[in-house]
Amino acid sequence: MDLKLFIRDVPDFPKPGIIFKDLTPLLRDPAAFAEAMEHLAAHYRGSRIKAVAGVESRGFIVGTALALDLGVGFIPLRKPGKLPYKTIRQEYSLEYGTDAIEIHQDAITRGDRILLVDDLLATGGTARAGADLIKKLGGELVGIAFLIELAFLKGREKLAGEQVFSLLTF
Amino acid sequence: MDLKLFIRDVPDFPKPGIIFKDLTPLLRDPAAFAEAMEHLAAHYRGSRIKAVAGVESRGFIVGTALALDLGVGFIPLRKPGKLPYKTIRQEYSLEYGTDAIEIHQDAITRGDRILLVDDLLATGGTARAGADLIKKLGGELVGIAFLIELAFLKGREKLAGEQVFSLLTF
Repeated sequence: MDLKLFIRDVPDFPKPGIIFKDLTPLLRDPAAFAEAMEHLAAHYRGSRIKAVAGVESRGFIVGTALALDLGVGFIPLRKPGKLPYKTIRQEYSLEYGTDAIEIHQDAITRGDRILLVDDLLATGGTARAGADLIKKLGGELVGIAFLIELAFLKGREKLAGEQVFSLLTF
Repeated sequence: MDLKLFIRDVPDFPKPGIIFKDLTPLLRDPAAFAEAMEHLAAHYRGSRIKAVAGVESRGFIVGTALALDLGVGFIPLRKPGKLPYKTIRQEYSLEYGTDAIEIHQDAITRGDRILLVDDLLATGGTARAGADLIKKLGGELVGIAFLIELAFLKGREKLAGEQVFSLLTF
């Protein structure tokens, strides 16, 4: 199945000149969604993953699917102030200003082998922050997985030193 | 397995006097997470569900898991401005002010049997809005499923006329 056919281009979103890769048609098709997740999971089977960490919000969808496929737990990384328990925070740069994500302090036990997942690799800022949070808690970052990679934005450069895998590259 | 043991009480979140039901320990435990999702899915097997709609953000986790378990597609309901394609919007009341959620116009074909899912039933405002959006697009709302219900907030009253099922009631 050509899974790229299930990714819709939406021009001028979120702002003029940007072509947004919309994955909702993929999610809506059970066979395509299952095949995409199976391809991703296959890449990590046998890697002794302990848990999958997914970044709010679309990373929750891909991350949950991958965690269930691998038979491991799921850890949400969220925007500031959203997680109820004790957290640590990592800021990262945007085009203008900064943003941040948080993780529960008790989400990871030292040495846990963690797979970080998001839907899309663009500039890599969010994933870099997520990777840093996992390491701060003593997690062993096995890799970072994306459903879609926008290669022309060179996000991999910001993730140098990490094992990056993306299913669909544009 | 007593799944309630995996729901953590966090006092004074998001504000003083509120005891927040934190489901991250459940998500983190593969056996508990799988059992919770299997209980939910069992309730709808044979109901000829066409797709599961989940509400941003935690509803993405529960909704994705349920969609995969039922072998159907997933439809994200999101905060305003987040979905890239043509949307319709439903506002709902909060304690102070209003909020809104959106759905893609092409997410549902008239007559599709849709299951709406969120993590938590509190006052029911978000779920009511989600149910209304599904119906506006011509979807047949089979039911509304929650992982957790805070019965003392009487959210079911706002969902009168709908088939509501929650796994863990407090």
